[in-house]
Amino acid sequence: MNTKSLKTLLARVRRGTLSPEEALSRLRLLPYEDLGFAKVDNHRQIRRGFPEVIYGEGKTVGQIVAIMGRVASRRQVVLVTRVGPDGFRKVRARYRKARYHAVARAITLAAAPRPEPRPGVLVVAAGTSDLPVAEEAALTAEVLGNGVERVYDVGIAGLHRLLDHKDKLLAARVIVVIAGMEGALPSIVASLVDVPVIGVPTSIGYGTGLKGVAALMGMLNSCASGLLVVNIDNGFGAGYAAAVINRSAPK
Amino acid sequence: MNTKSLKTLLARVRRGTLSPEEALSRLRLLPYEDLGFAKVDNHRQIRRGFPEVIYGEGKTVGQIVAIMGRVASRRQVVLVTRVGPDGFRKVRARYRKARYHAVARAITLAAAPRPEPRPGVLVVAAGTSDLPVAEEAALTAEVLGNGVERVYDVGIAGLHRLLDHKDKLLAARVIVVIAGMEGALPSIVASLVDVPVIGVPTSIGYGTGLKGVAALMGMLNSCASGLLVVNIDNGFGAGYAAAVINRSAPK
Amino acid sequence: MNTKSLKTLLARVRRGTLSPEEALSRLRLLPYEDLGFAKVDNHRQIRRGFPEVIYGEGKTVGQIVAIMGRVASRRQVVLVTRVGPDGFRKVRARYRKARYHAVARAITLAAAPRPEPRPGVLVVAAGTSDLPVAEEAALTAEVLGNGVERVYDVGIAGLHRLLDHKDKLLAARVIVVIAGMEGALPSIVASLVDVPVIGVPTSIGYGTGLKGVAALMGMLNSCASGLLVVNIDNGFGAGYAAAVINRSAPK
Amino acid sequence: MNTKSLKTLLARVRRGTLSPEEALSRLRLLPYEDLGFAKVDNHRQIRRGFPEVIYGEGKTVGQIVAIMGRVASRRQVVLVTRVGPDGFRKVRARYRKARYHAVARAITLAAAPRPEPRPGVLVVAAGTSDLPVAEEAALTAEVLGNGVERVYDVGIAGLHRLLDHKDKLLAARVIVVIAGMEGALPSIVASLVDVPVIGVPTSIGYGTGLKGVAALMGMLNSCASGLLVVNIDNGFGAGYAAAVINRSAPK
Amino acid sequence: MNTKSLKTLLARVRRGTLSPEEALSRLRLLPYEDLGFAKVDNHRQIRRGFPEVIYGEGKTVGQIVAIMGRVASRRQVVLVTRVGPDGFRKVRARYRKARYHAVARAITLAAAPRPEPRPGVLVVAAGTSDLPVAEEAALTAEVLGNGVERVYDVGIAGLHRLLDHKDKLLAARVIVVIAGMEGALPSIVASLVDVPVIGVPTSIGYGTGLKGVAALMGMLNSCASGLLVVNIDNGFGAGYAAAVINRSAPK
Amino acid sequence: MNTKSLKTLLARVRRGTLSPEEALSRLRLLPYEDLGFAKVDNHRQIRRGFPEVIYGEGKTVGQIVAIMGRVASRRQVVLVTRVGPDGFRKVRARYRKARYHAVARAITLAAAPRPEPRPGVLVVAAGTSDLPVAEEAALTAEVLGNGVERVYDVGIAGLHRLLDHKDKLLAARVIVVIAGMEGALPSIVASLVDVPVIGVPTSIGYGTGLKGVAALMGMLNSCASGLLVVNIDNGFGAGYAAAVINRSAPK
Amino acid sequence: MNTKSLKTLLARVRRGTLSPEEALSRLRLLPYEDLGFAKVDNHRQIRRGFPEVIYGEGKTVGQIVAIMGRVASRRQVVLVTRVGPDGFRKVRARYRKARYHAVARAITLAAAPRPEPRPGVLVVAAGTSDLPVAEEAALTAEVLGNGVERVYDVGIAGLHRLLDHKDKLLAARVIVVIAGMEGALPSIVASLVDVPVIGVPTSIGYGTGLKGVAALMGMLNSCASGLLVVNIDNGFGAGYAAAVINRSAPK
Amino acid sequence: MNTKSLKTLLARVRRGTLSPEEALSRLRLLPYEDLGFAKVDNHRQIRRGFPEVIYGEGKTVGQIVAIMGRVASRRQVVLVTRVGPDGFRKVRARYRKARYHAVARAITLAAAPRPEPRPGVLVVAAGTSDLPVAEEAALTAEVLGNGVERVYDVGIAGLHRLLDHKDKLLAARVIVVIAGMEGALPSIVASLVDVPVIGVPTSIGYGTGLKGVAALMGMLNSCASGLLVVNIDNGFGAGYAAAVINRSAPK
Repeated sequence: MNTKSLKTLLARVRRGTLSPEEALSRLRLLPYEDLGFAKVDNHRQIRRGFPEVIYGEGKTVGQIVAIMGRVASRRQVVLVTRVGPDGFRKVRARYRKARYHAVARAITLAAAPRPEPRPGVLVVAAGTSDLPVAEEAALTAEVLGNGVERVYDVGIAGLHRLLDHKDKLLAARVIVVIAGMEGALPSIVASLVDVPVIGVPTSIGYGTGLKGVAALMGMLNSCASGLLVVNIDNGFGAGYAAAVINRSAPK
Repeated sequence: MNTKSLKTLLARVRRGTLSPEEALSRLRLLPYEDLGFAKVDNHRQIRRGFPEVIYGEGKTVGQIVAIMGRVASRRQVVLVTRVGPDGFRKVRARYRKARYHAVARAITLAAAPRPEPRPGVLVVAAGTSDLPVAEEAALTAEVLGNGVERVYDVGIAGLHRLLDHKDKLLAARVIVVIAGMEGALPSIVASLVDVPVIGVPTSIGYGTGLKGVAALMGMLNSCASGLLVVNIDNGFGAGYAAAVINRSAPK
Repeated sequence: MNTKSLKTLLARVRRGTLSPEEALSRLRLLPYEDLGFAKVDNHRQIRRGFPEVIYGEGKTVGQIVAIMGRVASRRQVVLVTRVGPDGFRKVRARYRKARYHAVARAITLAAAPRPEPRPGVLVVAAGTSDLPVAEEAALTAEVLGNGVERVYDVGIAGLHRLLDHKDKLLAARVIVVIAGMEGALPSIVASLVDVPVIGVPTSIGYGTGLKGVAALMGMLNSCASGLLVVNIDNGFGAGYAAAVINRSAPK
Repeated sequence: MNTKSLKTLLARVRRGTLSPEEALSRLRLLPYEDLGFAKVDNHRQIRRGFPEVIYGEGKTVGQIVAIMGRVASRRQVVLVTRVGPDGFRKVRARYRKARYHAVARAITLAAAPRPEPRPGVLVVAAGTSDLPVAEEAALTAEVLGNGVERVYDVGIAGLHRLLDHKDKLLAARVIVVIAGMEGALPSIVASLVDVPVIGVPTSIGYGTGLKGVAALMGMLNSCASGLLVVNIDNGFGAGYAAAVINRSAPK
Repeated sequence: MNTKSLKTLLARVRRGTLSPEEALSRLRLLPYEDLGFAKVDNHRQIRRGFPEVIYGEGKTVGQIVAIMGRVASRRQVVLVTRVGPDGFRKVRARYRKARYHAVARAITLAAAPRPEPRPGVLVVAAGTSDLPVAEEAALTAEVLGNGVERVYDVGIAGLHRLLDHKDKLLAARVIVVIAGMEGALPSIVASLVDVPVIGVPTSIGYGTGLKGVAALMGMLNSCASGLLVVNIDNGFGAGYAAAVINRSAPK
Repeated sequence: MNTKSLKTLLARVRRGTLSPEEALSRLRLLPYEDLGFAKVDNHRQIRRGFPEVIYGEGKTVGQIVAIMGRVASRRQVVLVTRVGPDGFRKVRARYRKARYHAVARAITLAAAPRPEPRPGVLVVAAGTSDLPVAEEAALTAEVLGNGVERVYDVGIAGLHRLLDHKDKLLAARVIVVIAGMEGALPSIVASLVDVPVIGVPTSIGYGTGLKGVAALMGMLNSCASGLLVVNIDNGFGAGYAAAVINRSAPK
Repeated sequence: MNTKSLKTLLARVRRGTLSPEEALSRLRLLPYEDLGFAKVDNHRQIRRGFPEVIYGEGKTVGQIVAIMGRVASRRQVVLVTRVGPDGFRKVRARYRKARYHAVARAITLAAAPRPEPRPGVLVVAAGTSDLPVAEEAALTAEVLGNGVERVYDVGIAGLHRLLDHKDKLLAARVIVVIAGMEGALPSIVASLVDVPVIGVPTSIGYGTGLKGVAALMGMLNSCASGLLVVNIDNGFGAGYAAAVINRSAPK
Repeated sequence: MNTKSLKTLLARVRRGTLSPEEALSRLRLLPYEDLGFAKVDNHRQIRRGFPEVIYGEGKTVGQIVAIMGRVASRRQVVLVTRVGPDGFRKVRARYRKARYHAVARAITLAAAPRPEPRPGVLVVAAGTSDLPVAEEAALTAEVLGNGVERVYDVGIAGLHRLLDHKDKLLAARVIVVIAGMEGALPSIVASLVDVPVIGVPTSIGYGTGLKGVAALMGMLNSCASGLLVVNIDNGFGAGYAAAVINRSAPK
């Protein structure tokens, strides 16, 4: 509702074609529409197939099932992250079609016909222990409508493994790179490509790794220009950001 | 050099139209061309008007002048970051057309005719003390070919100031948000828009702000999905990443 | 016992209406009453309905039951914080009327007729995971004689949810705001109101959240003037301080 | 502007006593008044004698003079914090009546007739090195309309010095306690009184004091219930919060 | 073995009353006796009733039983610290007279007739949660031959509780003060007495207490002159140091 | 494949004794052999008896068994680190000859006839709690073909114990020193010998030991020149580095 | 004033030999004498020759001169710590007999005839950079009446240098050991002697030494039983504690 | 002096060919020779051309000149690290032949004829800002008798630059790799070679680089097996360790 439509509304009140009561109930929403372009954006997300994502950690199964119902009722695909296999078993008792992604520790419940995925997201992971975070990122990007390529187990201890996948690196529109330990892989990838690279430090490692802080610091201090970073183990955030970036790219 | 061109080369050797010695010297470069898509990418940057950026901190004026010469000789725009006014005075003695950006503490030396800037980058800053970092980000994005809008002094202590600039927030393709202190502004912005948001913590503040660590932690732990982060005070990195993201967007 | 009563006492000794022995036993308490205005204050608390609060963590059920008996014998309401459901089961075996507040993980045992609660405390929580801390704060303030309003699940990822509760924000005399992750909500609230705001960081989050340190640093470095902070997860402390502040306010 | 006044406005449009254009210009402000009770509050502050406070650090003298002019033009008392004596000399060249508070490192410019100060704020400081922070707190509270008592140099190494000032402790409505080193003084004060206590850690000390972090941690982990804390060296924040708390107290 | 005894030995070799072989085997030990005044000291400890103390954590019950046998065979009192009740049950199967100190989580096995304990050690603890550390300190000092007084539950939230025990504070020769949370109690005690005070921070607390780091920092930065500190939860170390200090005091 | 063999290949193509297709398939590997001198080095390792080591932590038994098969098929000795006894039981079901090293928590599967071990590696450990890390270091060095001497339980609390083993210290070509707590033993050893010393901090200790950080900091700040350090608890890394150093030493 | 003298006072009031007014003014001091055994202790210190020590850092020369006058007027020796040579020059203008201790950065002003120093304090320092802290400790102990031996430059990089001073180590009653870098020297000393050892970490070093934190952590985590620690660079605290310990020892 | 020579000495005493007094004076040195293989080793270093190195930081020019004289008198090459140009000017006034290494900030004073350097040390540096540390490492290794190759400015932002120097990497016996920022270069180098690699983190960078801590953590957590690490900016330590490693290698 902008200035123009507001003027129209007031004119209609004057002409008597809109009652003050009706006008009032519309104006009551005005502040939200104004401030709340978050809300407008929200609608746009729905329109574009971006469903609400449910962060499962710290929620009871009952709460999860309830929110799933709310999202599913809007005919959107449902994504629940950070749920263990036990939680899933209870969810499936309610939603027969729910599917569990064991590595990503996530549940999806597919809305009926889905649009063609938008290609362009590449998820790269350094080691096998980084897979849960990598799969959370990949799954999130997929649920948000993207086609996702995966390149796993290409840590810097054997750089030639990464170079084997040169074609995928060059074809991507946005790359999510997952690494624990010293977290150098995102820097290496960012130094090789000309698209946005999002580094995700993982809590893999021990001792001075400080549960991912070493990897995070490595990424933040990268000498590769423009490397972007999210929180430790935040596969969801990286997948979400990759989807936002890829959305604006030409198909 | 791909499989096809390699086959051609070998066929020419067989036919005797290429001597083994000549073939050898070409093959010697093969590994680098293979690894080195960084290099290829480098060329692509030049092609696209992405010049080499010179990080001035810790470099002598002599070194800076020398590298500027090298970049300028390729008829590219030159950007030198983190140089004080004294350094600039000496640089200008050599490059009459060099221009100093006092707030950003950066030097530019413009290549002759420049292409039309690509619109879409918005730089938002919380306080006036954040301006050096904000200007470094904005200038970097501009030098890399982008049109940059600026919205400054809109910290969360008075949220209505930010909402005054709703139009710019909604028009941007990528937003860089600079904030020190508790670093909450990027979270607020990211919660309102549907484009990529890059948070830049600054070392502004005192006490437990720990020279930007509080702001950094605030951004990494944002409850706004998909907020991306760079190192403390890294305006250059944010501007660079914004340019990379904006490049892939449709004009 | 002040100068005046001391003078009276000495005069009575002189007049012989008080024996030196009796005077001695009264004077023996003098230092404590002097130093110990803590003690005097203690009595004032009793007078005002401020009971002793029992911190349950690290205490055996036996110890808890014993202290509860001591407090209850003074006909005060009893509050025990940080007790699990198992602990409560054993407590109830002894105190039939004890009531368990599962979310706050606290036990209360109500003293018979209680005075009208003093309105004015508002407890705001960012997410559902913050509820245990929020409820500890709310319950503490209630037990200390305050009427408490609650506004939950209004994190900054959707600011309009907070603004829906504008009326409660404006009506409060003191506001406790609970938030984990980046801990920005107390800053936002403090920037909107003109009453004391107490921020409580929670240990909700992961990675660089460092079990609440990120939220704490966010609150300490708030650019909203005058935000007050307590320790991570210290709902009790916030509720207690809110009660102290609200006590001095006009009803 | 609430539902009722909105209804009236619309009724007037219908009746033709208010033109749509005039109604529009009023409605344009609606969102801000709605969101912006910050603004409303802002006005209330002015009404109540709460001037805008200028944080001088990181601002040029030119910027400070400009903002001072803006505040002074509203006939409010002006407070500028964290300004060195050099800065003040330049400010005085412009504002003859400006006064420098050397210990607090602050400038004030008094608005003509000021209301009677509201008594009740007590500022306690542990050591002489804590005085700059203590004076910043005291001056802030004074500028915001409060009468401030001061009790200095009463660190816990000689507890009897604090007890000498028992009367002031008991008479205060809100107490700000400043301490560096181990930061225990606020805990001691809070254990003795029944009014809100705000602890301000200072960066005084060396070695593991970590520029105030030890004192901050001491205050956050106080075993005295309800101690409230602000950032290291944040005298302004403590004075501001004390003023907000004291404002709601009965005179 | 000193210069004199060495001279004697050589003279005996010369006289033929000591064979070179016998002299050699004695001289072989010479370096150790020289370097090893640790060893000599070791003997002195035995002489003075200072037995070897066994740190139980990380040792198997088998290892503990074996070392206990070695110490007991020298007719010394045996002390094993940091053993759980399960470990004790197995130990008692072997040593019928072993006694378990449940709060201190330690085992003792008394050597037959023990000398009169040397009075003078006082152990003060702030809260009931600090008792395991306090008891470890007290028991260690007792086993090393000292008479130990205990003053528990006298935290600074109610300072008058500490002052009730003024006589014990003034009578002690060395005081061990145990405190978690903000760790201010040792500072208070040290400011009141003229004997050595050893502060022991405990890992009691939560949030920014950082498992005792807040308390440790509080003690290290104490403004009470000469407060001495040991590691977090190191009751044994404090008790040992107290015994060493008390040993040199006149009885 | 070096310049010479490349020339030969091209000459053969020219002579027609090698088809372009065959040459192509050989050249396709060229980049890796070139870049990948890691790979060449890999082959050299195999030639020298350096097998691939499997880091067991975070891998499923299925994954471990699969990788063991791959390594064993190359007739190399297999080493799997960080596997618990349960994991071993399942591994042995598949590999009858697998052997478990309980203290080191590692599995080996010996390749048939092994070369004579190269002497020269000494592993020194401060306490019995450091043995798991010490044994991991020793076993790694042994599996990589070295003869390993062990000197355990020689912490600095009784320095004479270390000096008893002077001969071993002087005979070693490279010394790995394991220590937790304050981590001073590697400094002491390094100050006594003229061969490379590798310090390994362990996570043994409590309180401010910060799970090995104190020991690590002690080693990094050693005043003994040239002490080299690996990550906390990284026995494998130290054993591997010792093997690399010892390999270049004359036998 | 104890129970007995109180009884006497009251009896005198009864008998009329003491007026109630006079009794009142005496009783007014009662709380302080009771609480204030700090004060009593203070007097005892004066009696024993323990003067007040002035911490010079953060004090103006004017303040220092004033406090010196107050102390000197009681005919005590004056000690001012942490004063630079410039400060001393101004002090000497006022106190001709003041003496500057350049290494310790301290001023003393001797009271006329001083008692025989009590022997027994040994100060050991690892390196020449540690001397300022070592001398502050030694001077403090001397001013407090002790005879002090010094053993400097005996760091663990050459342990034989320490052992050269075996006699002094064995003769001391209390030993202060100063060390930066890895801070291992106090552990070595403590493992060799049977008297109290106080470790003082210094801020000497770089990188991960973290301005003394590495040394501090090394001392706190010492495996030598009973090592006592003070804050980084706190030579005064160590010297003071050594004096307190030595005071109780038999001469 | 070993068992055999001791036996001989005692036999000579018996035979009367050695007086007890003479034997005594020889035995007096026994402990040191025993403990003191440090000393023996010291002599060995001298024999091998390893001079004493003087750490200049925190030493006065007078102290430096004095120690230089002592070392030079033994006809050894003198190395003084961490001296500024001003310090050098004063040193040269005394030692005409002293030479200043401006980048390494070190002084050398060459002993007359030096032995042929032992080849095999390679120093690799990531950026130009790392050169002071790199040169300190290279110079140290050179002064200790090694031939040193240098490969500078080969950071991971352009990996092909490193690969250009493949030949030097493969020819080295020990490699020192200097890197600031994220510190990934040592990991990359270690993953490519089969000789010992020593990583040296530098304090180059800003923000979360924490003055080298990020680089240090990156190296400690490297996924390249066997990477060895020294303290931040410790070029001397790395050069020293490289020399010790290279010494044992066959020429």
